[in-house]
Amino acid sequence: MANPGPGNSITLRIDAPSNFTVTSELAAAAAAAGAVVTALDVVESHPTTIVVDLTCNTTGEEHADEVRAGVEALEGVVVRQVSDRTFLMHLGGKLEVVPSVPLRNRDDLSRAYTPGVARVCMAIAEDKSKARNLTVKRNTIAVVTDGTAVLGLGDIGPEAALPVMEGKAALFKQFANVDAWPVCLDTKDTEEIIKIVKAIAPVYGGVNLEDIAAPRCFEIEARLREELDIPVFHDDQHGTAIVTLAALRNALKVVGKTIGEVRIVVSGVGAAGNAIVQLLLAQGAVDIVACGRNGAIHRGEEYTDAHRTELAATTNPRDFSGTLKEAVVGADVFIGVSAPHVLDENDIAAMADDAIVFAMANPTPEVDPIVAARHAAVVATGRSDFPNQINNVLAFPGFFRGLLDAGVSDITPPMLVAAAQAIAERVGDDELNASFIIPSVFDPLVAGAVAEAIVRVVESSKE
Amino acid sequence: MANPGPGNSITLRIDAPSNFTVTSELAAAAAAAGAVVTALDVVESHPTTIVVDLTCNTTGEEHADEVRAGVEALEGVVVRQVSDRTFLMHLGGKLEVVPSVPLRNRDDLSRAYTPGVARVCMAIAEDKSKARNLTVKRNTIAVVTDGTAVLGLGDIGPEAALPVMEGKAALFKQFANVDAWPVCLDTKDTEEIIKIVKAIAPVYGGVNLEDIAAPRCFEIEARLREELDIPVFHDDQHGTAIVTLAALRNALKVVGKTIGEVRIVVSGVGAAGNAIVQLLLAQGAVDIVACGRNGAIHRGEEYTDAHRTELAATTNPRDFSGTLKEAVVGADVFIGVSAPHVLDENDIAAMADDAIVFAMANPTPEVDPIVAARHAAVVATGRSDFPNQINNVLAFPGFFRGLLDAGVSDITPPMLVAAAQAIAERVGDDELNASFIIPSVFDPLVAGAVAEAIVRVVESSKE
Repeated sequence: MANPGPGNSITLRIDAPSNFTVTSELAAAAAAAGAVVTALDVVESHPTTIVVDLTCNTTGEEHADEVRAGVEALEGVVVRQVSDRTFLMHLGGKLEVVPSVPLRNRDDLSRAYTPGVARVCMAIAEDKSKARNLTVKRNTIAVVTDGTAVLGLGDIGPEAALPVMEGKAALFKQFANVDAWPVCLDTKDTEEIIKIVKAIAPVYGGVNLEDIAAPRCFEIEARLREELDIPVFHDDQHGTAIVTLAALRNALKVVGKTIGEVRIVVSGVGAAGNAIVQLLLAQGAVDIVACGRNGAIHRGEEYTDAHRTELAATTNPRDFSGTLKEAVVGADVFIGVSAPHVLDENDIAAMADDAIVFAMANPTPEVDPIVAARHAAVVATGRSDFPNQINNVLAFPGFFRGLLDAGVSDITPPMLVAAAQAIAERVGDDELNASFIIPSVFDPLVAGAVAEAIVRVVESSKE
Repeated sequence: MANPGPGNSITLRIDAPSNFTVTSELAAAAAAAGAVVTALDVVESHPTTIVVDLTCNTTGEEHADEVRAGVEALEGVVVRQVSDRTFLMHLGGKLEVVPSVPLRNRDDLSRAYTPGVARVCMAIAEDKSKARNLTVKRNTIAVVTDGTAVLGLGDIGPEAALPVMEGKAALFKQFANVDAWPVCLDTKDTEEIIKIVKAIAPVYGGVNLEDIAAPRCFEIEARLREELDIPVFHDDQHGTAIVTLAALRNALKVVGKTIGEVRIVVSGVGAAGNAIVQLLLAQGAVDIVACGRNGAIHRGEEYTDAHRTELAATTNPRDFSGTLKEAVVGADVFIGVSAPHVLDENDIAAMADDAIVFAMANPTPEVDPIVAARHAAVVATGRSDFPNQINNVLAFPGFFRGLLDAGVSDITPPMLVAAAQAIAERVGDDELNASFIIPSVFDPLVAGAVAEAIVRVVESSKE
């Protein structure tokens, strides 16, 4: 499934002889080597030679070497340099901290800084709640990680996690005008992480926990929710659950089934799996079988951790025991937040008619989506190169926009449900089909719809 | 000394009768009440009435009430609303976090975020030092406080300190394109502060400690310098010392004295006083008497803290003992980083001929600068409404610009001296006089000159 993609885009700077056919030959050579050419610019022209920047998508570093070799096989052509466009984009980081007020002259300075700022400080010293309006706390959240469960890469440490957190912060701003700041912690100690987040909290109006390994993440989230007066969101749990529920609502519509009647199998009982199960139960799902590495979680077994124990008590009403492959036989819905290739074509074929398959492991799904689509009615993944991308970016920017606008201190289950509904409803009845159950991440109205839904929940709870 | 200033600027929204003289009458009424009118706009016009926004500087809230009353005493005039322009400026905070890369479409997203970002993460996981180039660490510093010594306001807490830290961060960006982020810590425990700053350090290329009370600040700074691989600057110490030395170099030029021959009295032995003494000693000053609340620090007395003990050992070669007022008799230079009104006119008159007085307590100096100028040859303060403002903003933006550009991990004394020299040299020989010993904070070339000086020190130390 490795297709050339923009995440592996390179630019070759090429010295070539100057003639009428050279640019088309260069493009053809790159294409013949399997690259997808996206741009070609003559950047210098000399009497007998030209310099060309050829930009193309590849499948990775080895492929980039092959493309280079293919181009250099042309008569008189030399590749001077290969630039990796992804690395170029990350040079110097992806965020800037800019003043939102003018600082042109002494008058500005006297208000923004000394001496005027002292009066603002004293107003907050007298009434701490004023910090919500008079400081960045009004619109700023912390994106907190310890770097232990970053993307599918695992425990890569806080420095290596930073490019992801920067990207996340950039998305918060881009999609919902939320100022977000990366907090990458050089500690894996649960108590220390809790203590640190509490200590830095004065600056922030919310906390987005990100890519912290389970089960530590549960304890950290629960404790911070209890001990902080600002909302704490764990994107791997809440974000994933919201978008999954949104996609499932529309997928069920497509196949004409209801959530209360379907048999659901969830593969993966980490942060995402647990949160998905909780939200589906809250939405009226009855028959959920959650599977870990050792198969179905069921009442017949003793579990050492609180989350599996809880799952055993609240799911699996038929008390099914067996492997994941056995669990999906006859199931209506498969939701995977686990590992690559845990299912194959036969498993999907064994599901109920009009099956729904969400294979969200990244970058390699639980089952090849093309294979799955031969048997299932609706297939979704976490990837952008297949239809129905279940992507948290549909949820988290608008969700925090709503939290900050409503000035709430706690996240409640009705907010998660309302967010899922708002996302699902962005797909009109005339647009809804098996290949379009969830809006595009670039739908400019999603974040606003989610934010409004949160504010409505808060307002109706006040009545 | 309370003059109407832009830090106490208000805008009155006024309903007034429509006639030819009303706007001039409004301005005259405000002026008669002691306000300095800076703007007057007719924002609405109706057949018999107009709405006017009158903006003026006042001396504070009580004065603002008097101005309002003065305006309302006019026939038919009603003040609808009084807006405090300083508070308006702080609404919602003074910083934004914005993406520095485009996120327009899926290609951008594939590079800035998943899946492309994973390769950048792995490159850093394999070699942590790459974070310096591939993340915000390249250009970002933390502005860290515990809110215990904010401006002259004392221990007002982390929330109330935030407007100052935001202002500081805004100045870093404005003057030197350094991205700076406020870290306001809800703890006063030295060990916890050290632990937290170390834990959050992966994101930052430097740490600016700010407004942390002495003596805790010394321990925190010393430990962080030792235990972190990024530079740690304590602005209250280093920033103040740099700018003071810059001003003193030029002041000595004005009066034709040299640093090795003058008698210097420093009032205040907190963070700033200690750092100033160290830097002056490093620059060849010989006769320094440092005074705390109980008078001169001298060898004849036992001190319980390391800093006073060190001062007793390294300063006061004449072993003078006595009060501050006694210490300044015959002194050439007075440097105050202490408290309001510790000296009066007689004290300044008792100094040596061509005395230099730096009265930097904020907002109220150690001695009234107008009174001091009757006897001293050069007078400087920390205030913007007198000549010779000794303001740290001349030092910290350019200093960190240089540290980040040079990629250094430690701050050395030669860097502080070089920065002071660069600032001092921004005042040309043709500009230098008793009222202009230090450049304006808006001199656009100061930060660049300081940064270059730091880079030169680093480069010459490598040779």
